[in-house]
Amino acid sequence: MPSVSQKGRTMPQSPIRKLVPFAEAAKKNGVKVIHLNIGQPDIKTPKVALDAVKNNTLEVLEYSRSEGSEEYRQKLAGYYAKNDIHINAEDIIITTGGSEALAFTMGSIMDTDDEIIVPEPFYANYNGFATAAGVNVVPVTSYIDSNFALPPIEEFEKLITPKTKAILICNPGNPTGYLYTKEEIKKLAAIVKKHDLFLVADEVYREFAYDGRQHYSILQEEGLEEHAIMVDSVSKRYSMCGARIGCLVTRNQEIIKTALKFAQARLSPPTFAQMASEAALETPQSYFDNVKEEYTQRRNLLVAELEKIEGVKIGNPQGAFYCIAELPIDDADHFAKWLLEDFRLNGETVMVAPAAGFYATDGLGKNQIRIAYVLDRESLKRAVNILKEALMSYTHSEAM
Amino acid sequence: MPSVSQKGRTMPQSPIRKLVPFAEAAKKNGVKVIHLNIGQPDIKTPKVALDAVKNNTLEVLEYSRSEGSEEYRQKLAGYYAKNDIHINAEDIIITTGGSEALAFTMGSIMDTDDEIIVPEPFYANYNGFATAAGVNVVPVTSYIDSNFALPPIEEFEKLITPKTKAILICNPGNPTGYLYTKEEIKKLAAIVKKHDLFLVADEVYREFAYDGRQHYSILQEEGLEEHAIMVDSVSKRYSMCGARIGCLVTRNQEIIKTALKFAQARLSPPTFAQMASEAALETPQSYFDNVKEEYTQRRNLLVAELEKIEGVKIGNPQGAFYCIAELPIDDADHFAKWLLEDFRLNGETVMVAPAAGFYATDGLGKNQIRIAYVLDRESLKRAVNILKEALMSYTHSEAM
Ligand SMILES: Cc1ncc(COP(=O)(O)O)c(C=O)c1O
Ligand SMILES: Cc1ncc(COP(=O)(O)O)c(C=O)c1O
Repeated sequence: MPSVSQKGRTMPQSPIRKLVPFAEAAKKNGVKVIHLNIGQPDIKTPKVALDAVKNNTLEVLEYSRSEGSEEYRQKLAGYYAKNDIHINAEDIIITTGGSEALAFTMGSIMDTDDEIIVPEPFYANYNGFATAAGVNVVPVTSYIDSNFALPPIEEFEKLITPKTKAILICNPGNPTGYLYTKEEIKKLAAIVKKHDLFLVADEVYREFAYDGRQHYSILQEEGLEEHAIMVDSVSKRYSMCGARIGCLVTRNQEIIKTALKFAQARLSPPTFAQMASEAALETPQSYFDNVKEEYTQRRNLLVAELEKIEGVKIGNPQGAFYCIAELPIDDADHFAKWLLEDFRLNGETVMVAPAAGFYATDGLGKNQIRIAYVLDRESLKRAVNILKEALMSYTHSEAM
Repeated sequence: MPSVSQKGRTMPQSPIRKLVPFAEAAKKNGVKVIHLNIGQPDIKTPKVALDAVKNNTLEVLEYSRSEGSEEYRQKLAGYYAKNDIHINAEDIIITTGGSEALAFTMGSIMDTDDEIIVPEPFYANYNGFATAAGVNVVPVTSYIDSNFALPPIEEFEKLITPKTKAILICNPGNPTGYLYTKEEIKKLAAIVKKHDLFLVADEVYREFAYDGRQHYSILQEEGLEEHAIMVDSVSKRYSMCGARIGCLVTRNQEIIKTALKFAQARLSPPTFAQMASEAALETPQSYFDNVKEEYTQRRNLLVAELEKIEGVKIGNPQGAFYCIAELPIDDADHFAKWLLEDFRLNGETVMVAPAAGFYATDGLGKNQIRIAYVLDRESLKRAVNILKEALMSYTHSEAM
């Protein structure tokens, strides 16, 4: 019997996957499970985007260009200009989600066994893309006590080897909610220039920066023309995760030429989704203002309620729609499973993402969970209350 | 300045790409270029598929499940049953085009430097997926004189090494138009069982079998449960290439489990496109009958007209919508470029795909081109006439 590859065997699974059967079992038993574990926003997709698809008049649903439709790339360059990111349509390759942009980036800059340094905790699927590409993620730890700010540059330098090809950041961060400052980006710029590395920034949450804070893109930083590769996506910005449209943006034309070869092999990004994404660029500013206001209030509520629970520590999330909470427990994996299997408050429980899966260093994050605040405030409040009651009952239970 | 990866440098380009600037220049000069070089059908997408998307009532365009929507997979199993392929929904992973199914397959069964044996000439993007996965394509040559039938099994056995993980066939073939017989599939089955290999079949052209011939799927062959991995796509079947929906089908649950991890890393296949693909399953049989009749007539016309040209040799294409033609020239690359740059007949010329790009063995296919008959008969006839006149003028010209 032929066997799967070593690569296939070591492909990581989502940190949430193994909890899914327990959530399903709870639901079967009539328990209402409030999901704090997912990054699928509940926000409505802009009507202008949905309408573009509904009103399409295509007769043949053809392949688009491998680099994405010309019109969309042109207009997208306009969107970036409004965000003070000045690039040309030629600097953009449209991808099937930010996910594919990450895969193309790794393929374009890394060979087997090469290394990419990533501040942890980080978006767990970076591990999957790295394994698929045969390359290694090297973590540099950031800490809840400093709000998951950029680790000191010396910590990065300690990790640089001849196999290091890039530093990858997520800004604002999933799962940390941390928004890098301009000064932090400048520090990263200095180090990649000094060591001749690429700087890859996953900016899919760009739009989600709160409290009047400004997102500073690596593409705004001068002198990074050959180093900076930005990964973006419409998934969260317009709450259209199912479209599967993202992009890779870089002024480095060697990278564009190379990534385009990966893009050509898979022919084209989805056509309907490009229509929706192009139309989404017409979304009125009021939509974003409302969405930002909504997330800010949810964040405020979440932080305030969590802070009321004894023994819970949280960072100060400034962007995206996630936060990491440290709990007075030893093993969040066990706690998350227990919540689904054994705990109910008025017939409800919550599903959380154990944070260990967001760390590459063994043993870190075991007492942390990631909370996504992509649900209405009323449910969010109930969910935190459930967490509070659950923690009391869990920490007092002998069985633990 | 940081540099692109070796992988990126060696990523192959489409055999047609380097001709594109010449085609564009010709068009700019007012020349009408008839495309014989592309696999984008001109056939209309079934209305039922387009309407499903137009009439959708989504408010939030959400991620689907990583393995594809449950409903679609269930119905798709029904489609296969009608084609005498008896599998369950659990044996299917919905992918972003057949392209992604090929990438997931390679990742799931091969590690760096492993080998996959592929009869050449083959779909050129297999090279791209192999390079991206860090694995090697090992060609076994098939010949126009035997109509590109399966090479003798001894030729495969000569190539098997400890690094060989699979044999990959395309059935019916792009670029050959060859449809493997049941006996040929049985021969392949025997060899993969004997040597403990996977048998991967790209069956994206399943529906396009002419002259009353029956397509025989590797999933119909008994005893291959653990070996057979089938790649499929809606792109050509329903002329909806821009949807970007395909699938990987296997009864081997280890492969399903493994490929699912690749699928989870990229989150989900496109949602609108899955709607269209699910609805496309309701396409009436008359649609396929008409399409098959149309392609048969085109094929007949193409073959008849090409056979009239002195010195042109062609196989007997029985499926898909491609054929390889051997021309009385030395260098089809040069000829194809010359057609675009220097030859016009009544203000028109043709663009063809030089076949060398479909061979992995250096030097093969240099006097061959691939013709795709995805255009109306009238244009097809004019195109072959242009080819004929062009060949006369080309072979008589001293400059060549
Ligand atoms: C940090 C981060 N990057 C990339 C992605 C990929 O998203 P998509 O492929 O939908 O664009 C996600 C999705 O959750 C994410 O959280
Ligand atoms: C033989 C073959 N396999 C796979 C594909 C990939 O098609 P898609 O990704 O559109 O399903 C094609 C497209 O032309 C093809 O010809």
